[in-house]
Amino acid sequence: MAKITMLGTGLIGTFYTQTLHGLRSRDRVVNVYSRSPERAKAFAAEQGIPHASSDLREAIQDTESEVVVVGLPNDRHAEAVRLAAEAGKAVLCTKPLGRTAAEAKAMLEAVEEAGIFAGYLEDLVYTPKTLKALASTRNGAMGRVLWTRSRETHPGPHSAWFWDPARSGGGAIIDMGCHCIEIGRSFIGKDKRPRRAFCWGATQVHPITAEDHAIGLVEYEGGAISQFEVSWTFRGGMDLRDEVSGTEGTIRLDHFLRTGFEMFTAAGEGGYVAEKAEGRTGWLFPVGDEVHELGYVHMFRDMLDAWEAHRQPTETFYDGYLVNAIIDACYASMKSGRFEPVKIERWPEDIGATGPKTQARAEGRTPAQVKKDIGGRGPGRSGSFLEIKTERLPDGRTKRILKDKKSGRIVETID
Amino acid sequence: MAKITMLGTGLIGTFYTQTLHGLRSRDRVVNVYSRSPERAKAFAAEQGIPHASSDLREAIQDTESEVVVVGLPNDRHAEAVRLAAEAGKAVLCTKPLGRTAAEAKAMLEAVEEAGIFAGYLEDLVYTPKTLKALASTRNGAMGRVLWTRSRETHPGPHSAWFWDPARSGGGAIIDMGCHCIEIGRSFIGKDKRPRRAFCWGATQVHPITAEDHAIGLVEYEGGAISQFEVSWTFRGGMDLRDEVSGTEGTIRLDHFLRTGFEMFTAAGEGGYVAEKAEGRTGWLFPVGDEVHELGYVHMFRDMLDAWEAHRQPTETFYDGYLVNAIIDACYASMKSGRFEPVKIERWPEDIGATGPKTQARAEGRTPAQVKKDIGGRGPGRSGSFLEIKTERLPDGRTKRILKDKKSGRIVETID
Amino acid sequence: MAKITMLGTGLIGTFYTQTLHGLRSRDRVVNVYSRSPERAKAFAAEQGIPHASSDLREAIQDTESEVVVVGLPNDRHAEAVRLAAEAGKAVLCTKPLGRTAAEAKAMLEAVEEAGIFAGYLEDLVYTPKTLKALASTRNGAMGRVLWTRSRETHPGPHSAWFWDPARSGGGAIIDMGCHCIEIGRSFIGKDKRPRRAFCWGATQVHPITAEDHAIGLVEYEGGAISQFEVSWTFRGGMDLRDEVSGTEGTIRLDHFLRTGFEMFTAAGEGGYVAEKAEGRTGWLFPVGDEVHELGYVHMFRDMLDAWEAHRQPTETFYDGYLVNAIIDACYASMKSGRFEPVKIERWPEDIGATGPKTQARAEGRTPAQVKKDIGGRGPGRSGSFLEIKTERLPDGRTKRILKDKKSGRIVETID
Amino acid sequence: MAKITMLGTGLIGTFYTQTLHGLRSRDRVVNVYSRSPERAKAFAAEQGIPHASSDLREAIQDTESEVVVVGLPNDRHAEAVRLAAEAGKAVLCTKPLGRTAAEAKAMLEAVEEAGIFAGYLEDLVYTPKTLKALASTRNGAMGRVLWTRSRETHPGPHSAWFWDPARSGGGAIIDMGCHCIEIGRSFIGKDKRPRRAFCWGATQVHPITAEDHAIGLVEYEGGAISQFEVSWTFRGGMDLRDEVSGTEGTIRLDHFLRTGFEMFTAAGEGGYVAEKAEGRTGWLFPVGDEVHELGYVHMFRDMLDAWEAHRQPTETFYDGYLVNAIIDACYASMKSGRFEPVKIERWPEDIGATGPKTQARAEGRTPAQVKKDIGGRGPGRSGSFLEIKTERLPDGRTKRILKDKKSGRIVETID
Repeated sequence: MAKITMLGTGLIGTFYTQTLHGLRSRDRVVNVYSRSPERAKAFAAEQGIPHASSDLREAIQDTESEVVVVGLPNDRHAEAVRLAAEAGKAVLCTKPLGRTAAEAKAMLEAVEEAGIFAGYLEDLVYTPKTLKALASTRNGAMGRVLWTRSRETHPGPHSAWFWDPARSGGGAIIDMGCHCIEIGRSFIGKDKRPRRAFCWGATQVHPITAEDHAIGLVEYEGGAISQFEVSWTFRGGMDLRDEVSGTEGTIRLDHFLRTGFEMFTAAGEGGYVAEKAEGRTGWLFPVGDEVHELGYVHMFRDMLDAWEAHRQPTETFYDGYLVNAIIDACYASMKSGRFEPVKIERWPEDIGATGPKTQARAEGRTPAQVKKDIGGRGPGRSGSFLEIKTERLPDGRTKRILKDKKSGRIVETID
Repeated sequence: MAKITMLGTGLIGTFYTQTLHGLRSRDRVVNVYSRSPERAKAFAAEQGIPHASSDLREAIQDTESEVVVVGLPNDRHAEAVRLAAEAGKAVLCTKPLGRTAAEAKAMLEAVEEAGIFAGYLEDLVYTPKTLKALASTRNGAMGRVLWTRSRETHPGPHSAWFWDPARSGGGAIIDMGCHCIEIGRSFIGKDKRPRRAFCWGATQVHPITAEDHAIGLVEYEGGAISQFEVSWTFRGGMDLRDEVSGTEGTIRLDHFLRTGFEMFTAAGEGGYVAEKAEGRTGWLFPVGDEVHELGYVHMFRDMLDAWEAHRQPTETFYDGYLVNAIIDACYASMKSGRFEPVKIERWPEDIGATGPKTQARAEGRTPAQVKKDIGGRGPGRSGSFLEIKTERLPDGRTKRILKDKKSGRIVETID
Repeated sequence: MAKITMLGTGLIGTFYTQTLHGLRSRDRVVNVYSRSPERAKAFAAEQGIPHASSDLREAIQDTESEVVVVGLPNDRHAEAVRLAAEAGKAVLCTKPLGRTAAEAKAMLEAVEEAGIFAGYLEDLVYTPKTLKALASTRNGAMGRVLWTRSRETHPGPHSAWFWDPARSGGGAIIDMGCHCIEIGRSFIGKDKRPRRAFCWGATQVHPITAEDHAIGLVEYEGGAISQFEVSWTFRGGMDLRDEVSGTEGTIRLDHFLRTGFEMFTAAGEGGYVAEKAEGRTGWLFPVGDEVHELGYVHMFRDMLDAWEAHRQPTETFYDGYLVNAIIDACYASMKSGRFEPVKIERWPEDIGATGPKTQARAEGRTPAQVKKDIGGRGPGRSGSFLEIKTERLPDGRTKRILKDKKSGRIVETID
Repeated sequence: MAKITMLGTGLIGTFYTQTLHGLRSRDRVVNVYSRSPERAKAFAAEQGIPHASSDLREAIQDTESEVVVVGLPNDRHAEAVRLAAEAGKAVLCTKPLGRTAAEAKAMLEAVEEAGIFAGYLEDLVYTPKTLKALASTRNGAMGRVLWTRSRETHPGPHSAWFWDPARSGGGAIIDMGCHCIEIGRSFIGKDKRPRRAFCWGATQVHPITAEDHAIGLVEYEGGAISQFEVSWTFRGGMDLRDEVSGTEGTIRLDHFLRTGFEMFTAAGEGGYVAEKAEGRTGWLFPVGDEVHELGYVHMFRDMLDAWEAHRQPTETFYDGYLVNAIIDACYASMKSGRFEPVKIERWPEDIGATGPKTQARAEGRTPAQVKKDIGGRGPGRSGSFLEIKTERLPDGRTKRILKDKKSGRIVETID
């Protein structure tokens, strides 16, 4: 049995907690942290967690908990990992590990120095289909892997901080490319060194500075090529597909839109369809058990089994660091328009990251006030805010992510 | 935490135990029964079970265990349930509950009289896709359900007793129709009374007396029709599909052959593909996590959660009894060629079941001797045995199910 | 080159004419008949046909035309075929051949006596997929065919006469079962005699007397079973699927909903999606070239090639007659609740068909008046008409099919 | 009616002729050219063509023919087009138009100067699915197109000249990239100028100098990105898929492997499955009517309708030239590792193409002799030839494409 401190109460904290408490699990979240005391308390009540805290250090140092799970925005991973290392607790950190390879490297070194167990929560490598496909590939069913394709696209993330590069570290690449890159790397073989990366990216649709669409190629030692496609501009739900091609075979995985579950409804049902689903009538493509299909169940099994057995999990902080190094090369390539080397051996001296801008919620106004104040994307349309994304939440509320035209700050409202 | 006695060490006992011990489960099998002491011991060792027994009563009465799981051939369900009732243990019985409604009714009454918790292990109602589709249907997405189709077909079961009607209670209908019937009933609504059933069945391919292919229709109060298709003659793997049609919508579920996992391999990989898969090269359609896709994980969650909470599980012995009553009507219809009423209120006076014939393994001969002694299906071909089915087991061995031409007995060899 | 008289200007006449004039065809429709002179003229203008007529005999006897294509409502097939036989013209008749086997037998005998070329326009046997699957089956890929399934379901036909059993000869079975039965028969082998048929049918949704949903089983000499599912209650588009299972293989065909063309659109496009499609936004499943996918192109190729070569086409009037004989058995079974023999050798003495009731359009009223006068299906809701079906036509107009509460007559309006 | 001279009797000449003579076509091939008089004669006999010739000029100048169809290897397109221009005949040229933009430009100018009708036979833009998807896109269903993906991969082409860059102009890009590029361009809009292209390519599997796998990105004016994936290393058949993503929707097309036709056969059928299919048993995915699914039928309709109507076809020589210009940029990028501009306005002065090396068949030896003389790919394995590809032909014969180790020449044998 593992006793866990959960850091974060957003979508990812919810999925993680549901997974850790799900099925006939023997594990329990014993403390939950949110920067908002009310949110922490409410989350603890909903999920049956005995303690709640709005003090990060206190939550991590809770003597009852053995394992710290970091489900915070990207700009708070480093701090949380450092505190866990100081507390000597096992730490599991959500993806991406850092915003840059430099940040990830610091986190990697922190856990190594502290000698604590650390796991990188790259769930999409752990979907049951991916696990079986990886096993078949290792058993030789593909021969030598020549090409992988990993695609994750949807209409855009659900929290404001994702859209703010200072907090997240980038756009669609840092958000989802991390998944795709590690999936490709897992099929090609973790012993193969990534040599160079090319990436095209653009801001095609949203009023943001980060890329909302990108396509990348990572070339590995031995000649295999790993292609990724990430987008916040996709319409039709969440497109999560992987393909592998080798000298002896080919694999196609569809994790979300075509999984053998098809439903037409003229009536709808008033409920939640699936993450990022668009629409509630017509042909819908639900998934069976979402946390299972997305790999959370098998990921935490590996993590906690590994922790109990004092072995390394399949996905380590080192894997997270390498993914960040490849992403760094992708961002460099996006600017240079050419293949860029993946820098693994030589560490950058200066991270050069400016501190994250203050992120404000539109708290001084009611959602209705804000809604009236949203301007259009076209020129000449007034209003203080630009709309980035509107999304229906699992609990039926509506979230709006907005950009303040003057300050450029990204805020969100829920009504 | 539940402490469990597992009765049976065949494919179903293995799947059940793997599920109960799987993921981060808090439950444990503490005793396992097989009629063969060697098999019981070996199974216990493989699965990490502290006690093994070849005495059914002893295994059930083990004071450490709280829950008895019946994973035995159909002709031993009644005995096992009676012993569990006598021992006052909670009992979970695999499908079908009985070989006939009369047998099921006796089991239902035994657990009611003993006042014990009892669950009917109808796994395919619990697949994650089915659970979600049922929830959508209850929420109104289909409007009024008009039609269901449930199909389970494959190249035939893996153990000799399935092929022997005296032991199993029939052929493909008793083996798989029980799943399909309960799936249809769940979508149409358990409050709707099944009125009448029609069934066509035939022995199209195998040298057996039971049906290896059947198609049935069950008409419910309110007018909905529930169609099932079961076969041991299907080629291409295991076909597990459900469809629902209502006034407002339609659902299509594919549990096994088209689930978003497609693999072509010219090389193969030397391993196990999926239950009932044919072939190891070419286009293959594996499933991700088999016990999950088949509903075992969510079934045991419901069963053990219900047991802990002192509530009824979703699938009860009464459900199992009703399924048997519908199957009885199907077998009657197969003979009469017409719709037959589903007899629920009035119980048949005479069960008329002859005792199961003695089932012998071809133990006096080596597999090689038996292999040489298999005659062809065509006339004029000699040999003592007719081959019913040859199947590659997950562990790489080959099982042959044979019919002794003289005695008609069904035997199996493994080499 | 074939010079053709087209009888009928409804959906089927349109599809036929588009096909005959389509691609780089050398054939031409030279005369078109509609009972309405205006409609005949307009159709001729649209389709580039030199002559139009509202006199059936005149259109058939046009000396320029060599081939008569019957695309009329079912109650006018016999008359049209008789006139073509009298004129000594080749005749191609749409499905079903007759409303009953007796009617079909009379048509068969008429063309035999006149010694004219006659073809049965069973298009779904001619879809390119079906043709290739039939060829593979004849080449042995399936071994011995054991089972076929053919399903055609959609939200209901587009013309009023379909819904009136006196004119059409029945409901969903006569409308679509004729396709499914002939598809099954083609896979099983036309040399195999259909022995007996079972059929369940019901009026589940619409305010009509004919069945709007039916499931049938046809058993053939040799033991193969052919299953059909037809419905006017399906939601989600047009479901056209066939399956075949044999001792050596299995085939799955999807002709309409999942053919490798998937589209999500939040915007729609203001146009026609596909026959029977529901909705214009969300996930849509168009087909490429509809007349090709539905078999019209290859059907007319076979028919006209056969006519030119003085050979029999694949689908003859005798096939049409057999299909009617099977349908007769299905309707008998629907009433008796049991398998009924398929009567082929002994011809019914008395056709016993009452003349078709007069079919009236709601011509005395404007569509708007009628729309206001539609009552609900529930009790106590007033209005002179019950709504059977509302459908958007390819040309953007809306058709309503209604039942006059007092007279029971079925009428249609277009606005 | 069109009277046609067919140049070329390979796979493409066969498909073209079958299409032009297929269904109820009014068009006829009246003369066929092959450099081998025997092949020309045999082809004419098989396809019902009255005249055969092994003299290119003579075949083109045949006064009976009105339209010349170029189905020759890439290195003979320019000559054939020039001769057709000289003869004042309409000319339709297979893809790619040239081996380079310079070559294509010369062909474009030749037909413009001669004032003849010219069409670019880019069949995959004309598949019925693509035509309908393009129409939906033009109607606004996608909103603004942001991304296209076009993928064509298979185990390698069937004729030796494809593998010889001097004759073909390159590898997988020139062979199949031309399709993908034009598909992407058609969805994005032909009025949008391609700005720059990036391409990765490698020789991953075969003993050739050209790329057998490539991935490219073409960026258009307005910001849309068009991705292509081409490979001769794919296993599992022919993968022909397109995807489109826009601000309002998404499209997925599968033209070959998942089109609603699935077949499992343990027996096989001794016949031809589909172009590039691997294997004849297990799960197979045939297509219905291959020339239809690949767009040949609708392509020739557009071409010949346009020729008759004195209008431009959808695909012109100018389109072919632009595709070549983009391919030129891709090849430049493959070398430079960076985005390269697509040069359209400024024409390269010097094509720099060396004349095609002499292509020899292994005629002095029997196929059996050659087969014995094939060395392995590994080091130290002897034999005069390296095997590039072995393929079963539609007529049941086996073709081997080989590389002469000493001379580097690529030859083929058929047995």
